[in-house]
Amino acid sequence: MPTDPVALTQELIRCPSVTPEEGGAITLLAARLEDAGFTCTRVDRNGIANLFARWGNNGNGPAFGFNGHTDVVPIGNPADWTHDPFGAVIVGDTLYGRGACDMKSGVAAFVAAAIDFVAETPPDGSIVITITGDEEGDGVDGTDAILDWMEANGERMDACLVGEPTCPDVMGDMIKIGRRGSMTAYITATGQQGHAAYPHRARNPLPVLVKFLDRIASHQLDDGTAHFDASTLAIASIDVGNPANNVIPAQGTAMANIRFNDAHTSQMLITWLEQTAQQVSAGTDVEIAMTYKVSGESFITPPGALSDLISMAVEAETGRVPEMSTTGGTSDARFVKRHCPVVECGLVGQSMHQVDEHVSVSDIHTLKAIYTRVLRGYFAA
Amino acid sequence: MPTDPVALTQELIRCPSVTPEEGGAITLLAARLEDAGFTCTRVDRNGIANLFARWGNNGNGPAFGFNGHTDVVPIGNPADWTHDPFGAVIVGDTLYGRGACDMKSGVAAFVAAAIDFVAETPPDGSIVITITGDEEGDGVDGTDAILDWMEANGERMDACLVGEPTCPDVMGDMIKIGRRGSMTAYITATGQQGHAAYPHRARNPLPVLVKFLDRIASHQLDDGTAHFDASTLAIASIDVGNPANNVIPAQGTAMANIRFNDAHTSQMLITWLEQTAQQVSAGTDVEIAMTYKVSGESFITPPGALSDLISMAVEAETGRVPEMSTTGGTSDARFVKRHCPVVECGLVGQSMHQVDEHVSVSDIHTLKAIYTRVLRGYFAA
Ligand SMILES: [Zn+2]
Ligand SMILES: [Zn+2]
Repeated sequence: MPTDPVALTQELIRCPSVTPEEGGAITLLAARLEDAGFTCTRVDRNGIANLFARWGNNGNGPAFGFNGHTDVVPIGNPADWTHDPFGAVIVGDTLYGRGACDMKSGVAAFVAAAIDFVAETPPDGSIVITITGDEEGDGVDGTDAILDWMEANGERMDACLVGEPTCPDVMGDMIKIGRRGSMTAYITATGQQGHAAYPHRARNPLPVLVKFLDRIASHQLDDGTAHFDASTLAIASIDVGNPANNVIPAQGTAMANIRFNDAHTSQMLITWLEQTAQQVSAGTDVEIAMTYKVSGESFITPPGALSDLISMAVEAETGRVPEMSTTGGTSDARFVKRHCPVVECGLVGQSMHQVDEHVSVSDIHTLKAIYTRVLRGYFAA
Repeated sequence: MPTDPVALTQELIRCPSVTPEEGGAITLLAARLEDAGFTCTRVDRNGIANLFARWGNNGNGPAFGFNGHTDVVPIGNPADWTHDPFGAVIVGDTLYGRGACDMKSGVAAFVAAAIDFVAETPPDGSIVITITGDEEGDGVDGTDAILDWMEANGERMDACLVGEPTCPDVMGDMIKIGRRGSMTAYITATGQQGHAAYPHRARNPLPVLVKFLDRIASHQLDDGTAHFDASTLAIASIDVGNPANNVIPAQGTAMANIRFNDAHTSQMLITWLEQTAQQVSAGTDVEIAMTYKVSGESFITPPGALSDLISMAVEAETGRVPEMSTTGGTSDARFVKRHCPVVECGLVGQSMHQVDEHVSVSDIHTLKAIYTRVLRGYFAA
């Protein structure tokens, strides 16, 4: 009897694995995969639950990987939900719950596909499944920890499919072959406090700060590249906290987030930001200091064997040729990319992170069928 | 026996008249002036204590006015003070206490000068003393209320001296013949919230806000006028309060304070701000809305009889020819100006509004002597 990916999704939703809690989800999957003949290893790091599972020996045959996460974002106000966010209620074709689309369904679909595939047509190679409990949080002890452990232990994947929701509107309309990088600059402009009536005795940092922010926000970073949209910079916040209209403040802070394509590296952008700050603050007696958080560099798996294989599987099951996109936020594919070619393919993500997150039940079945075709195609080649 | 302005300052400091509290200060002065033959009328409005006092009849003779305030700013943390802020302790030549320089000493000096002057050389005219308990606060029910009452009751001053501290460094180095205007623009830029990874689905108000702020802060309002320094604009605060680096906020606010000379009116500046906001936000789908608080228009009593009289009195007592300045913040002279020519002349203001506010005891005596010379000169003319 085939493994039901919808029932498995429901079981996972009932595990309250709000990041970074394991909530029983990783344990459940490990047990299910063990039963199906996978060798499972918990690769926990700093309290984060992570699972490495391999079917087949780690020999010379091809090794196909799946990656996903079981942690979910907080539910917000429970009263805002129509259905229990951990209840996994099905109404008609719709399954409700936190993680319904991001991405307990995706995990359930590839686990179900892999379990049935190795039982029905044992491949001449390996299937590797990596699942983390830390994708929605900082991500430092999640997929990255599993990859560190794999490298240390000689484990490998030759290609990897990340099961994140990738479709903006309908099942099969998009897969992702790369992602823009993301970094945040935390900006502090410092001058000297004073009275607004005697501005020459103060050094107001704010005119310099707004000039700097205008300069970087007005700058066109690029016009897009072969596989990427144009890079963007968003001023996310500016904060001073001075309640007195007659006081010139000593300091102002700002936060700018950059989503950048393969025309840039974070280091190139940092150099640009520092040079711009130098230019703007020169001769002003105001100091602009910045710290940076780089969430990920941009990466691309150029259209080729892996994306073609996945695209054909999607088309066969949905009748749609998926767009090969690099849009959206970051995902753990940014870590996998340093290990092997990686493509993301999953469900419709419209309700992810929202109240009443939900997914189409039939789409989960379709996704399992897509993943099964991918495995079949991969090991047939 | 002459009235001691230092003892009177001490009595006033011991009245805890933190704005808007009367604290006994106005009552004390009314009693002292009544005893000296002044007709005193309390002109309280909306709970604010105000005093109108006149010596002499309200006939055809010249009427010289003094104006001041007895309210003081809060003391902050009492533990920061070396001496009791309401103790009026004298150490050597220094008198300590809240209001020591701003401006219980100035009030005491002109009250003492007026009392002794009318006793010794009764003038052929009137002396009008107006004292408010609301200068450090909003000021709407203070000197303005007294002037409203004077107009309604046919009372007048032909010239007025405001006893605010006007000297930046040493006694006698500056008097003020005008003040710049002051207004604050409260700016709100509104767009639409979204995710930093999908900026095209959001409308970030912050790039428009910083462009607007850069535009107005970079603009040279003027190069100064005959009697005024250049007008200045200070961005006092910018606030968004968005903690998430991946979120584009819906709104940002800012506060800009303008100190403007007689090349502008507040209405002209509002028109300029509105036009600039229109230009910057045109075509952006971001709305910039502003509200304004006008603390006062600029005003000037051009150098002439009144300022010359006061300048000569200062020079006679201190040996210094005071600079005729229009610098600094606002004062109640902005209200008096609509009634009659007004000049400000007082003590060294260095420690005003600060912890350990203090004043030189001998300067208070000097100030009383200056005010006495002004009265003598005014009524001799
Ligand atoms: Zn996800
Ligand atoms: Zn004052």
